[in-house]
Amino acid sequence: MSMSGFTRFARRCVLMAGLLGVSVPVMAHAEADRMVIFDDDGFALAQWMVLKAPHVKVMGFATVSGDFWQKEATAYALRGLEIAGRTDVPVVQGATYPLMNSEKLTDRWEALYGKLVWKGAWMKKWVENTTQALPPYHPADVVPDLPWGNPKLKPSPENAAMFMIRMVHQYPGQISIIECGPMTNLALAQKLDPEFASLAKELVYMGGSLNPRQKLTSAASAQFAREFGNSPRREFNIRFDPEAASITMHAPWKRIVMVPVDPSTETEMSAEFVKDIASADTPIARIVKRSANNFPLWDEIAAAVWLDPSLIRSSTDLYVDVNTMFSAQYGDILSWTEGYQPDVGEQKEKVVLTVDVPRMKALIKDLISKP
Amino acid sequence: MSMSGFTRFARRCVLMAGLLGVSVPVMAHAEADRMVIFDDDGFALAQWMVLKAPHVKVMGFATVSGDFWQKEATAYALRGLEIAGRTDVPVVQGATYPLMNSEKLTDRWEALYGKLVWKGAWMKKWVENTTQALPPYHPADVVPDLPWGNPKLKPSPENAAMFMIRMVHQYPGQISIIECGPMTNLALAQKLDPEFASLAKELVYMGGSLNPRQKLTSAASAQFAREFGNSPRREFNIRFDPEAASITMHAPWKRIVMVPVDPSTETEMSAEFVKDIASADTPIARIVKRSANNFPLWDEIAAAVWLDPSLIRSSTDLYVDVNTMFSAQYGDILSWTEGYQPDVGEQKEKVVLTVDVPRMKALIKDLISKP
Repeated sequence: MSMSGFTRFARRCVLMAGLLGVSVPVMAHAEADRMVIFDDDGFALAQWMVLKAPHVKVMGFATVSGDFWQKEATAYALRGLEIAGRTDVPVVQGATYPLMNSEKLTDRWEALYGKLVWKGAWMKKWVENTTQALPPYHPADVVPDLPWGNPKLKPSPENAAMFMIRMVHQYPGQISIIECGPMTNLALAQKLDPEFASLAKELVYMGGSLNPRQKLTSAASAQFAREFGNSPRREFNIRFDPEAASITMHAPWKRIVMVPVDPSTETEMSAEFVKDIASADTPIARIVKRSANNFPLWDEIAAAVWLDPSLIRSSTDLYVDVNTMFSAQYGDILSWTEGYQPDVGEQKEKVVLTVDVPRMKALIKDLISKP
Repeated sequence: MSMSGFTRFARRCVLMAGLLGVSVPVMAHAEADRMVIFDDDGFALAQWMVLKAPHVKVMGFATVSGDFWQKEATAYALRGLEIAGRTDVPVVQGATYPLMNSEKLTDRWEALYGKLVWKGAWMKKWVENTTQALPPYHPADVVPDLPWGNPKLKPSPENAAMFMIRMVHQYPGQISIIECGPMTNLALAQKLDPEFASLAKELVYMGGSLNPRQKLTSAASAQFAREFGNSPRREFNIRFDPEAASITMHAPWKRIVMVPVDPSTETEMSAEFVKDIASADTPIARIVKRSANNFPLWDEIAAAVWLDPSLIRSSTDLYVDVNTMFSAQYGDILSWTEGYQPDVGEQKEKVVLTVDVPRMKALIKDLISKP
């Protein structure tokens, strides 16, 4: 029996058992696992969720600049793997700078069109008072001491884009990519190899904003609403590298799932939330317990709906692109329902509008409680 | 004595001999040779010039889409190396598609802003009658039979951008890059590795247009003047991938030499020119003899001024960038004299305005006459 024949046989057994109402443990062999690469400008709960999920094989964590510079994001990923006891998973380093955007250009843009609420690695001060801490401003090659302790683990020598290209060729049609940072690495991979996107299984990304509303009453919720109040189409991951996002969204993916800001406004990493999900005494839970930052759940929603698509309460299909004109709307999301799209290569995306928050919370708690 | 000590010693000997008026043959060891990578959307006289030049080591030919699709450019490079008897030099394949520009987008642009004279791989017909042949229009993965015969030689498995990154790390400060096509590969290399440009010795490129004038009276000269008559800042290499050109020009090169359209209008690959330069009976001369296309010399000027900078008759230092706004001037060259530049990362370039045409012709003839 060939390997793929074996896989089909194994899947059929599980299916049959399900139809018969019999609960059987799925065999934990590599072929049956869902393979995923997680690309991000940081490392936190979402990554641990995916690492701890059953029947998931994380092929690697790719890093990119955004909230943090790539080197700092890499340090977090390495330390995050040490905490999870998963130093077997490679961390591959990606782009340090966006394709065309830059800190200097962002200063000029703000002088023309007004201040951005959040600028990630380029953030020097808040415009208004905010409860969020201001991360230290430092050059791209400086990695400050991490609150979790510094990693001993080293990154892979392979570049993130090249790693992703190699993976989709090695496992055609089988690799999911979860993108929770700027899309610089994905754009580079697509332009290095025009087959890249078409060889992946799917892209699930947190990014963009359609028409979000403040739904909670906390101070943090009101402060996060500043980011979309006067600019409902702006979101940081996309705004940091708009050209990379547009290139990525024009690529011929088999399937794209967008998790914009919209579903996140029902969620908050509050003290109560964190206390509840991190009640277990596991290394990850011990860190999460100290991580109440009152942020909406962003990357966690992307990870959750990839792990369990039934968590999606409502979604819609839209053609999506990004405004790359250096105008007041630079980096804003453009979207069209079927028939209205300009048809210059933009792709249809499944856009997540709301998620089942209680069930998502239960999933997160379950995952990070695993020993 | 260490290798680098040996190199310094060898260089000093040659220098001393020069000062003493003694002519000595430079030792043909790899370290003393000028190392170059040639990136282009085709392969012709310019490449053969560099291949045949003494004390030059061609590390590789990189290919990119532009006049031809990358696969066809690759076939030309492979066949060109067979003709030159230099199958030892690797051909590395680069990008098939520009970063953001596309054939569809170009159709929309033309419908808004007017027709382009030349569109390279996207060219379906001339707007006006022209003496230039119309190359066959075909998909990116089709390689028509070459007029020179098809190559048996295969390209390297390495990607062009990755190859260039590897080379500049292996020989820091020593690799010149001659770019005669769209800058997609260079932009990818820079974004994959922020150290890329700073580790090269220099970039010499044919591209862009400042203020060219028709200087010859031939029908072909008048027809080529159509390309800049109403759009003096537009040139095909830059216009095919404006974002890649802007990214490349913002990179921290030690030195950039621009060869715009301007110096080319004094030159023409006429029947007489070709007959004169290709009078020798060498494999290359036999091909060149049949290649009178009445084109201005473009890539040949870039190759010539890299081989012998004393061929530059006049030049100027300018800060140069590219308009990447999807407007009527999409892809046009922007330039400033010192002090006028906006200072958002644009670099100073040495811009070649005129060259010594008779001496350049003699150089070309000398090079392609070598057995």
